[in-house]
Amino acid sequence: MANAIHHINFLVRDLSQAIPVWERILDQPVAAREELESRGIISARFNLGGTWLVLVQPTRADTVPARHLEQHGEGFFLLSLEVDSLDAEADRLGQDWLSGPARQGIENWHIQDLDVGRTFGAQIQFAIEG
Amino acid sequence: MANAIHHINFLVRDLSQAIPVWERILDQPVAAREELESRGIISARFNLGGTWLVLVQPTRADTVPARHLEQHGEGFFLLSLEVDSLDAEADRLGQDWLSGPARQGIENWHIQDLDVGRTFGAQIQFAIEG
Repeated sequence: MANAIHHINFLVRDLSQAIPVWERILDQPVAAREELESRGIISARFNLGGTWLVLVQPTRADTVPARHLEQHGEGFFLLSLEVDSLDAEADRLGQDWLSGPARQGIENWHIQDLDVGRTFGAQIQFAIEG
Repeated sequence: MANAIHHINFLVRDLSQAIPVWERILDQPVAAREELESRGIISARFNLGGTWLVLVQPTRADTVPARHLEQHGEGFFLLSLEVDSLDAEADRLGQDWLSGPARQGIENWHIQDLDVGRTFGAQIQFAIEG
């Protein structure tokens, strides 16, 4: 089962503009900045009570984040739920709930995306670290 | 400053369809169902590690949630940040960061919305309980 919210991603066109605004709202400095070449993004994140808020800027056009930004504009992108085992959740739900195989996230995060066609417009995924 | 994520709202057209899907994904039953007549919504919520995930269905057309659903479709609606004082945050940011006065949320939640024009497409608000 999902234990907590691991992270929430927000798409932005320009990280350098978005970071100071989020720092102002949250009243804390950005905690980490990363690049995930396999996903075609650069990111910056804040931690709020154990949950990561991640700002994501696509760096090339042929990716899921870039297509989402193109179609929907800036704003919320996805909700990532912390679980104990990606395999156990995949077995519990069944393959037809999943969107592709498990994949690498930023840092040591491992991700299983769910099929957005089932989730009433919400991009949802499971995540574990390590 | 923001201490934690108080709740995250997702707009749906039909709560009765969305609830069983979210129950399946989260592997937990819905924790509470409510109506907030002043906002024109019915809602159902789950708790994940201290954060509420709230499914929101508009019940009439002339409201902020209904207009957001009309313009953006189903999916993520807003991010609500837990703070110690709505007044202190309003003073810290200044009036031009706010969208209207503080208002009542569901249950005993009190809400201060931020101006979405400043937040790169993300609807953000502050919340306190009590």
